[in-house]
Amino acid sequence: MRVLGIDPGLAIVGFGLVDFSRGAPVHVRHGVIRTAAGEPLPRRLLTVYEDFTELLEAFKPDALAVEQLFFQKNVNTALPVAHSRGVILMAAQRHGLSVGEYSPQQVKSAVTGYGAADKTQMMEMTRALLKLKAHPKPDDAADALAVAICHCYAGRILP
Amino acid sequence: MRVLGIDPGLAIVGFGLVDFSRGAPVHVRHGVIRTAAGEPLPRRLLTVYEDFTELLEAFKPDALAVEQLFFQKNVNTALPVAHSRGVILMAAQRHGLSVGEYSPQQVKSAVTGYGAADKTQMMEMTRALLKLKAHPKPDDAADALAVAICHCYAGRILP
Repeated sequence: MRVLGIDPGLAIVGFGLVDFSRGAPVHVRHGVIRTAAGEPLPRRLLTVYEDFTELLEAFKPDALAVEQLFFQKNVNTALPVAHSRGVILMAAQRHGLSVGEYSPQQVKSAVTGYGAADKTQMMEMTRALLKLKAHPKPDDAADALAVAICHCYAGRILP
Repeated sequence: MRVLGIDPGLAIVGFGLVDFSRGAPVHVRHGVIRTAAGEPLPRRLLTVYEDFTELLEAFKPDALAVEQLFFQKNVNTALPVAHSRGVILMAAQRHGLSVGEYSPQQVKSAVTGYGAADKTQMMEMTRALLKLKAHPKPDDAADALAVAICHCYAGRILP
């Protein structure tokens, strides 16, 4: 099973591709989609759609994994992210992927065994689990790899 | 110029089509796109995308008009709407429409001449401007017609 983890955003969308093979996640690729701050919202959303669709067509993942969206504080940040996340979920459905949504605690728990793990612990365990020499960069891509790992383990670890 | 006004939502998306002809908005059609509450979010977003795209292909509007999204209060309501709105804006861009975003005050001002108009005044002026016999139903479609009217007048009324 090939899992595409996504850390959604409007300026930057992190992605992380992982193959779940013989019970372990194997790193395939990670990176980001960027959109230009100066461009109108509809144009930026179309860039997200086009680049995300290109990823789907190039790497043919079976599943999409994303974090649930919680915003207690800043709605002004939340709304653009939710616009982009809507485009991504729709495009995944359009391409027939199954979609897993996980809470931040579920992702932390799956990656480190500890639902309140901090950022450094998450980075280090993501690196170690995927047998990478360095921490994946940027953070958006590392977060995307983490949620992809979570999806791999979802069947046996999560409640 | 043919304008498609949209009142975005996840369960229900209102639409209102208006031709701006010889300085006045002329009613073409209004209605709603609905998605099933029981279905997963990605499936509902794909329904919005597919039905919205069908509208674009059937009626070939030149422009999309939507209200800006403001949510001071309930983020739990705002996030699903923003997901759907992202899909709609992206699809409009993908089909080459120009997109106008207006504040609720701008819409009220354009339709009634009064930025603090109440719902009843808005309904009545929308009906009268479009020479309809009854108030357009449901409310989501009426709101969509109002923002389409706002776009028609945007060039000459709004600041």
